[in-house]
Amino acid sequence: MKNFTFQNPVKIVFGKDTIAQLANELPKDAKIMITYGGGSIMRNGVYDQVIAALKGFTYIEFGGIEPNPHFETLMKAVEMARAEKVDFLLAVGGGSVIDGTKFISKAIRYAGDCWDVVVDPKAVSELVPLASVLTLAATGSEMNNGAVITRAATQEKYAMYGAYPEFSILDPQVLYSLPKFQIACGITDSYIHVLEQYLTKPDQSPLMDRWAEGVLQTLIEEAPKVMKEDPDYNSMANFMLSATMALNGFISMGVEQDWTTHMIGHELTALTGLTHGVTLAIVMPRIMDVLRKEKGDKIVQYGERIFHITSGTYDERIDETIRRTEEFFNSLGIKTRLSDYEVKEDVIDEIERRMAERGWKLGENRSVDAPVVREILEKSK
Amino acid sequence: MKNFTFQNPVKIVFGKDTIAQLANELPKDAKIMITYGGGSIMRNGVYDQVIAALKGFTYIEFGGIEPNPHFETLMKAVEMARAEKVDFLLAVGGGSVIDGTKFISKAIRYAGDCWDVVVDPKAVSELVPLASVLTLAATGSEMNNGAVITRAATQEKYAMYGAYPEFSILDPQVLYSLPKFQIACGITDSYIHVLEQYLTKPDQSPLMDRWAEGVLQTLIEEAPKVMKEDPDYNSMANFMLSATMALNGFISMGVEQDWTTHMIGHELTALTGLTHGVTLAIVMPRIMDVLRKEKGDKIVQYGERIFHITSGTYDERIDETIRRTEEFFNSLGIKTRLSDYEVKEDVIDEIERRMAERGWKLGENRSVDAPVVREILEKSK
Repeated sequence: MKNFTFQNPVKIVFGKDTIAQLANELPKDAKIMITYGGGSIMRNGVYDQVIAALKGFTYIEFGGIEPNPHFETLMKAVEMARAEKVDFLLAVGGGSVIDGTKFISKAIRYAGDCWDVVVDPKAVSELVPLASVLTLAATGSEMNNGAVITRAATQEKYAMYGAYPEFSILDPQVLYSLPKFQIACGITDSYIHVLEQYLTKPDQSPLMDRWAEGVLQTLIEEAPKVMKEDPDYNSMANFMLSATMALNGFISMGVEQDWTTHMIGHELTALTGLTHGVTLAIVMPRIMDVLRKEKGDKIVQYGERIFHITSGTYDERIDETIRRTEEFFNSLGIKTRLSDYEVKEDVIDEIERRMAERGWKLGENRSVDAPVVREILEKSK
Repeated sequence: MKNFTFQNPVKIVFGKDTIAQLANELPKDAKIMITYGGGSIMRNGVYDQVIAALKGFTYIEFGGIEPNPHFETLMKAVEMARAEKVDFLLAVGGGSVIDGTKFISKAIRYAGDCWDVVVDPKAVSELVPLASVLTLAATGSEMNNGAVITRAATQEKYAMYGAYPEFSILDPQVLYSLPKFQIACGITDSYIHVLEQYLTKPDQSPLMDRWAEGVLQTLIEEAPKVMKEDPDYNSMANFMLSATMALNGFISMGVEQDWTTHMIGHELTALTGLTHGVTLAIVMPRIMDVLRKEKGDKIVQYGERIFHITSGTYDERIDETIRRTEEFFNSLGIKTRLSDYEVKEDVIDEIERRMAERGWKLGENRSVDAPVVREILEKSK
């Protein structure tokens, strides 16, 4: 087992009708900025619940944070927060709103060009505390300090680290009104978060392996139930808890991590606008194929423990495991080929060019350079 | 799934040669009190590593905290800490030292009779921050806010809640020098911590079930390796991580908990001095037997998933699961009958009397009253 440091200070308030607990969790004397997205919270009742809980608090609102939140949009929130002397942020939304709010938190008190806080790890500032009311189970942003920010002007998308939410409120009932495509992408995103932390090599930590496999099994088991027209509360709760546990550090203690799928997926989204979860479902099966020499032993373990694949040659077992993984994404209505979305050669060219320009070597073995990325994308066509 | 709130702020610094990191984690300007036990840290080199890391810090020492730490002993530390204006506590030891230090942390600034902070949940005070260097994997105290304190004068042992450690340093190498009996008790204690949170009823949270089963499976798998004369580092690390994860709240989100075994075990230790882990190994199999109507479905799940027991009638499967559980404790050299330790009828009488006097109803269904406790102990003879 590798040496590691672990700490996750986020308070999770989980369950039915928990949004009202905002009143107990928020600091009484803060000037709060509520951030949200395109307005779905107006239609599903979440906005009304939040406003009811905020009676007696001082707050302003900033709406309109888009999916894959834009630096350009978020800077308007930063300016408003500075002008209004905001000292607490409450993100009400999914991963994009929470991620965007982590950027706002880091940018408000930063004196220089705020793009620095995204791309330059040395650009530090006093973070404005934030909290969240989660409305979409997918990214895990509600219980980690990561964020992904897009610069629309240059079609770039980067991961950054900022504040952990002080607390996050997770009421599984908010998931009922989501379009099934969003649920499907949330399941896929969560599933691949686990694989990014799991699919490296065996025998690093048997406990972390079992916990990762536990999240995968639960997602597979709950997926058809939450995709039904009329899902039950416990299925939604199991899915929501699994999505949070998929990316809060609980399954990555002492083990290598990969994240190649996300890095390539971010480029696909930045250049084509494809939904995050879809890009992951396209790329991950091809990575398993191209990197089968490095990852084969763990792919075989994954296939055996999750899909009960125990016969065939080593390579046949890997192939079958890839097929079953892809079949799972397909069962959610997510297609797994670039051609399904009319992504053409020019996008592959540009991603290869960017990887070469940045000199990135991705993956747990730092073996995924620009030519390997091209091979993965060629196989994804 | 039940509604729940989860937060665990403890920073874990885990791995080889991590004790030196104390210098980075401790507050520079604090007046520190180092607390420890009977002196094994002098013999195994841990004390020297701690003192080397503390160069430049201001500290005093309080040694001699016994197993099942005594209120009477700890009050001497409280008096010393008050006189020396200590404002940070560093526990170097196993669960007893860390538990005792949680009491000291809570008592230093408490104005009334300090026994109150153990038995009266309303007795609150400003907690003095603490941290730990763990030397024995067992109780999980390094990553939770619980403690168990004994009053020697009255032979009473009570659970209390205090501060979470600010950080805990876990170097698996410190386990090499432990007597095998202590390792065995640590495995047993960790295993039963999981069962206390798991062995209630199925279908509350499939993810928490899998994570609990993951800890149980890992403990069973690693047990023979860490009990060997010359254990390897990874086995020690896997055991140490499992023990911490067994009681830090990670496997109890949204599910019922039991804790009857611990409550009865504490009485056995208070009255006879039997080691904590031993008392649990005696009581838990009998609880599974006596409460088979309430717990049967979960016992059957546990037997199937951990011991692969899939044939026989419902009751036969329960019996075989109990037998396998007991066999596991026996395989560690721990005997599981009161008669093995010459515990006599008068102890059973006194425990029944105390339960009746306190009016306790234990377990997830509050069904374990004094007569049921007597039945459990009678079957444990």
